[in-house]
Amino acid sequence: MPQSIATARVLAALEEKAASYELVLVNIVNGEHKQPAHLARNPFGQLPAFEDGNLMLFESRAVARYVAKKYDSGMDLLRSGDAQEAALVDVWLDVEANHFDPPIAVISYQYVVLPIFGGVTDEKLVEENAAKLEKVLDVYEERLSKSKYLAGDFFSLADLSHFPYIHRFMLTPKATLITSRPHVNAWWEAISSRPAVKKVAAGMTLGG
Amino acid sequence: MPQSIATARVLAALEEKAASYELVLVNIVNGEHKQPAHLARNPFGQLPAFEDGNLMLFESRAVARYVAKKYDSGMDLLRSGDAQEAALVDVWLDVEANHFDPPIAVISYQYVVLPIFGGVTDEKLVEENAAKLEKVLDVYEERLSKSKYLAGDFFSLADLSHFPYIHRFMLTPKATLITSRPHVNAWWEAISSRPAVKKVAAGMTLGG
Repeated sequence: MPQSIATARVLAALEEKAASYELVLVNIVNGEHKQPAHLARNPFGQLPAFEDGNLMLFESRAVARYVAKKYDSGMDLLRSGDAQEAALVDVWLDVEANHFDPPIAVISYQYVVLPIFGGVTDEKLVEENAAKLEKVLDVYEERLSKSKYLAGDFFSLADLSHFPYIHRFMLTPKATLITSRPHVNAWWEAISSRPAVKKVAAGMTLGG
Repeated sequence: MPQSIATARVLAALEEKAASYELVLVNIVNGEHKQPAHLARNPFGQLPAFEDGNLMLFESRAVARYVAKKYDSGMDLLRSGDAQEAALVDVWLDVEANHFDPPIAVISYQYVVLPIFGGVTDEKLVEENAAKLEKVLDVYEERLSKSKYLAGDFFSLADLSHFPYIHRFMLTPKATLITSRPHVNAWWEAISSRPAVKKVAAGMTLGG
């Protein structure tokens, strides 16, 4: 589903590479993702799963890496040609997964997804995770005061990987955590103005 | 500190590659990891940080990737020569980080680390995380019934990355979650009998 955060990560990589692909919907509302056909594609019953000929992949960051390597048109999102730049892309990809994703996932879910299903935002849980996210964004602000993007003065998969959750997060009352930090805000403006990102973002609208 | 799970992951990669390196202790007991000198190396104030000439890295899986790429002696832990194998290594590295690590971290901490500092194991928290870990290990058991290692019939960084937490977990009363699954147990036997892994494991002893 194009609204899925992890799916949007893969779609953005495909769009950046101008790859041709087919998006096949898996209906999570009726539980299709927990049925045997989908579990054969993704044993954890999550979105997305990715097929390329006989190759079956899951885990969105691993899929995005594969896409970045396979389609060599345009920029090298992994900076494979330079061992040091590639290592820094790997560092900030892991920072996104291990530090950034957990708190922003909770906040975005509480404010944007839960109300659609009739739930009530848990403000205490939001505040706990906002405090964690602030600490992470303070590290980003410092880092981005020294380079335009996280891994250096080049756009990479590490930056791209942040797009889906920030896009959703900007719909929440906590968006000021981004806009109040000048370097983080400029970085987000640079990411979100990319044509590939705008195209995928347009498909992420929930509800309505 | 060689007892640090993330540090052990990097050390194991260095040992597999027979790289020469120096382990510089950062004393977390007196808070050295939160001081400016260490924050300049790792802005999240965690272990490890990694220096190679002018290059400074953190996030253990990213560092292990760098080590695997830099030292090309012996096996290719990332299977860089085969795009499909490399993608499967990436998938299972991300599974380790995103599915396996969170529950086993809680259980290992509750049983092994907390008591050293006078804490009492939270059995309810352990049971919640044991249930999560069981679901993950059921996926592993199925996967390992089809290939000797996670990404295929070859040892890779995806397998290696699991070693530090399983080594510590085997000291807990929940070790049967590993030993009761024949393919998972055989996989762990194969990993833990590797000379590089045995060497790093010997330095991980806590307390006493």
